[in-house]
Amino acid sequence: MKISARNDLKGTIKSINFGPISASLVVEIAPGIEIASVITKESAEHLELAPGKEVHAIVKASSVMIGVD
Amino acid sequence: MKISARNDLKGTIKSINFGPISASLVVEIAPGIEIASVITKESAEHLELAPGKEVHAIVKASSVMIGVD
Amino acid sequence: MKISARNDLKGTIKSINFGPISASLVVEIAPGIEIASVITKESAEHLELAPGKEVHAIVKASSVMIGVD
Amino acid sequence: MKISARNDLKGTIKSINFGPISASLVVEIAPGIEIASVITKESAEHLELAPGKEVHAIVKASSVMIGVD
Amino acid sequence: MKISARNDLKGTIKSINFGPISASLVVEIAPGIEIASVITKESAEHLELAPGKEVHAIVKASSVMIGVD
Amino acid sequence: MKISARNDLKGTIKSINFGPISASLVVEIAPGIEIASVITKESAEHLELAPGKEVHAIVKASSVMIGVD
Repeated sequence: MKISARNDLKGTIKSINFGPISASLVVEIAPGIEIASVITKESAEHLELAPGKEVHAIVKASSVMIGVD
Repeated sequence: MKISARNDLKGTIKSINFGPISASLVVEIAPGIEIASVITKESAEHLELAPGKEVHAIVKASSVMIGVD
Repeated sequence: MKISARNDLKGTIKSINFGPISASLVVEIAPGIEIASVITKESAEHLELAPGKEVHAIVKASSVMIGVD
Repeated sequence: MKISARNDLKGTIKSINFGPISASLVVEIAPGIEIASVITKESAEHLELAPGKEVHAIVKASSVMIGVD
Repeated sequence: MKISARNDLKGTIKSINFGPISASLVVEIAPGIEIASVITKESAEHLELAPGKEVHAIVKASSVMIGVD
Repeated sequence: MKISARNDLKGTIKSINFGPISASLVVEIAPGIEIASVITKESAEHLELAPGKEVHAIVKASSVMIGVD
């Protein structure tokens, strides 16, 4: 399936933590560049997410803000 | 100001387009890795965004989904 | 690709409108049940979205609110 | 109150789980069509959500992505 | 209808602008405190939004970030 | 850093609760006007959030819905 979300960043799961409802994970998309994600625990289990697994970090363009120093 | 959003990716604006309400821009955060963003035209003008400008692409962790091939 | 977003509703595009930055579309997921979506014009063009096309409406669970009468 | 969110899907709560901060629930909006939602535990308690209760699943159009097979 | 979104701020529309797909508006919720919103043009027309109208600005708690100076 | 998110509401933390993945907090932005936020526990700890601390509640305009009585 192709998806309208314009940000699809391939990477590898570095770490994942599970709570009773949510799971928090960190994906390394390039050396030294990491993306943090929070999804439901149910999705994380369904997708069998674990450290080392190759995944995509996907973000809708309207969820991206811009900062300027 | 430090912000709770856990994803703060530094990069350079590659392109920006303005509509009457929104602006769409692409930020290169590493060679070959780009982030697309849609913000209000008013914010883009207020921050004086233009190609070549160094910016941060900021994303709340709860806005990041995970995909598996 | 399987995605962590827990809502994946199959349907058919009923209508789509394009602005300079965004596109607005309506997907019928069951008789009389419609989902409205706003995505970037660029994504809508890239996915070749048009009335009658079969698509998935995808929503992250954390974007769903609950109302009670 | 009428709300700008364009997706207002009536249904019945099938299941709900509570964590210390969040609650996760599934709403059946038509036979075989379910919507998953994560809200705060506080809201779920305030609205007295429980299996069998009739509710609305509400989603802003800009939170809906489109996928194509 | 009561909604799970925990932020419901009453105010008055100060200004509204319409594009072909989206509408951008500013709501004053207290003297000197304003909230900016972008919704679909269709919703803005359906709700007959205009300057001076009393409305609620509604935000899901998971959409609120925290900044520290 | 200046950010594109158009809503930046200064206030004081009234309460904060921590779960294993998320933290829920309430910020008073004016007498009697409160904003609820859910962020990751990790961000809340990193920013050393606690009752009484002065913070900004930050919301992207596209995350704000409008309700009409």
